[in-house]
Amino acid sequence: MSREGFFTIISIGNELMTGRTLNSNSQWLCKRITDLGGSVRRIVCIGDHLQTIVETLREEMDRAPSAIVTTGGLGPTFDDMTLEAVARTLGVELQLHPDAERMVRRRYQMIFEGKEFQMTAERLKMATIPKGARPLENPVGTAPGVLIETKATAIICLPGVPDEMKAIFEGSVEPFIKGYIGDLRFAELNLEVFDIMESTLAPVIREAVSKIPQVYVKSHPLGSEHGQPRIVLNLSCRSAEGDEAKALLHRSAAYLTDRVTALGGRARVAQ
Amino acid sequence: MSREGFFTIISIGNELMTGRTLNSNSQWLCKRITDLGGSVRRIVCIGDHLQTIVETLREEMDRAPSAIVTTGGLGPTFDDMTLEAVARTLGVELQLHPDAERMVRRRYQMIFEGKEFQMTAERLKMATIPKGARPLENPVGTAPGVLIETKATAIICLPGVPDEMKAIFEGSVEPFIKGYIGDLRFAELNLEVFDIMESTLAPVIREAVSKIPQVYVKSHPLGSEHGQPRIVLNLSCRSAEGDEAKALLHRSAAYLTDRVTALGGRARVAQ
Repeated sequence: MSREGFFTIISIGNELMTGRTLNSNSQWLCKRITDLGGSVRRIVCIGDHLQTIVETLREEMDRAPSAIVTTGGLGPTFDDMTLEAVARTLGVELQLHPDAERMVRRRYQMIFEGKEFQMTAERLKMATIPKGARPLENPVGTAPGVLIETKATAIICLPGVPDEMKAIFEGSVEPFIKGYIGDLRFAELNLEVFDIMESTLAPVIREAVSKIPQVYVKSHPLGSEHGQPRIVLNLSCRSAEGDEAKALLHRSAAYLTDRVTALGGRARVAQ
Repeated sequence: MSREGFFTIISIGNELMTGRTLNSNSQWLCKRITDLGGSVRRIVCIGDHLQTIVETLREEMDRAPSAIVTTGGLGPTFDDMTLEAVARTLGVELQLHPDAERMVRRRYQMIFEGKEFQMTAERLKMATIPKGARPLENPVGTAPGVLIETKATAIICLPGVPDEMKAIFEGSVEPFIKGYIGDLRFAELNLEVFDIMESTLAPVIREAVSKIPQVYVKSHPLGSEHGQPRIVLNLSCRSAEGDEAKALLHRSAAYLTDRVTALGGRARVAQ
């Protein structure tokens, strides 16, 4: 298993491609993985099309991230085909997993409140997962998540319904992600800058990054370049030592504040 | 120029990868392109890293979409490198474009309200675009958009600031997109279904899609599978004739409504 701690998200669903649905899932996953110290390098969104999912999985596996997290396509309908795509990509069979079947059955027992029900083909489909994979308990919906480890990359499949995706991530996925990341931690600090245009600030940012290269500085202009410009500088740093990261951020912020002041602007650390 | 009318979006920016920023730009672009009759097949989000942007552009160009729309990385700072990446990908030089320079200069004349100002290296950078590209007027910000046509695919570069991205798209990009799409139109209809679980509805959806294959049916469960389930079925259709698309949607909706009623549920077309 790769321990570089970089990640790929594949979001699956036609509703993302038509703009019907805003992909808030990938933002949530990026935040969580970043907070754990990991780095999301790519997010790829594609529609519900088997061959496209297989090709995308292959291409992203070739980049050998620690893990690929997919969202969407785990439900009971004909266009929920993520697990079939994973099985094809890895060249393994899909098989009914006894633990997954128990999970799905238990959910339907709750839904039917003790009344009799059928484990139809559509319901069993949600418990039919690639050989070698383990199901991940879904505490708020019917389709379990799935985790399968390959030589270089783990594939983690989560539902597209945000509450279910979050619940499985928090309940079952986080420890794996932490394991892939190791001791790295992410720290950031926002510096608000007033009365200087981004084009004037640009060489100052370049200087700060060349002096303290561990700290990445990204400018976010608020209110465009006019009248009284306001820019937020996002300073971020990944380090094994949390205190070291904070010290580096403060050094970079102090340097930027000095230079901004010299240019006639103002800067302050945002709360 | 390919006239298949399918599109790729590449969203560029570290703030997307840390989850600091929600990628609402790509949803907006997907909606617009879909409404124009086009089909977005892939959205790829990557950080501000030159080699990554070049590789991603190459990979996506190999799929030969009608156009690739990029957002982000057009500003004056060191990590705004989209145009350098496009130039490298196409093997052309970056050069100061006289029209682009006029556009940038005019914006600074407005900002400085007639006072003297310098066209610094950072300001000229925004007017320095790949050879063969044309600048697209940015009515609300400083960095122009850029359009460059290659044999199979047009590359359209828009800023990451949403207001600027939208203004350039509406002012300059839409006619090109329409040209790539031709006469295809997209139509959709939502059917609300009550009192049937998604797993029960799944075979009905499969039947509807096999009977009327031009209409794609996607189920969106609202409120999970419990008590009184509610599901929205999104029916969509691409067709050269708008009336034909609507007729197909209504045929599919009528079929689904009949089957839902037979199963003891209710269905109604959503407003």
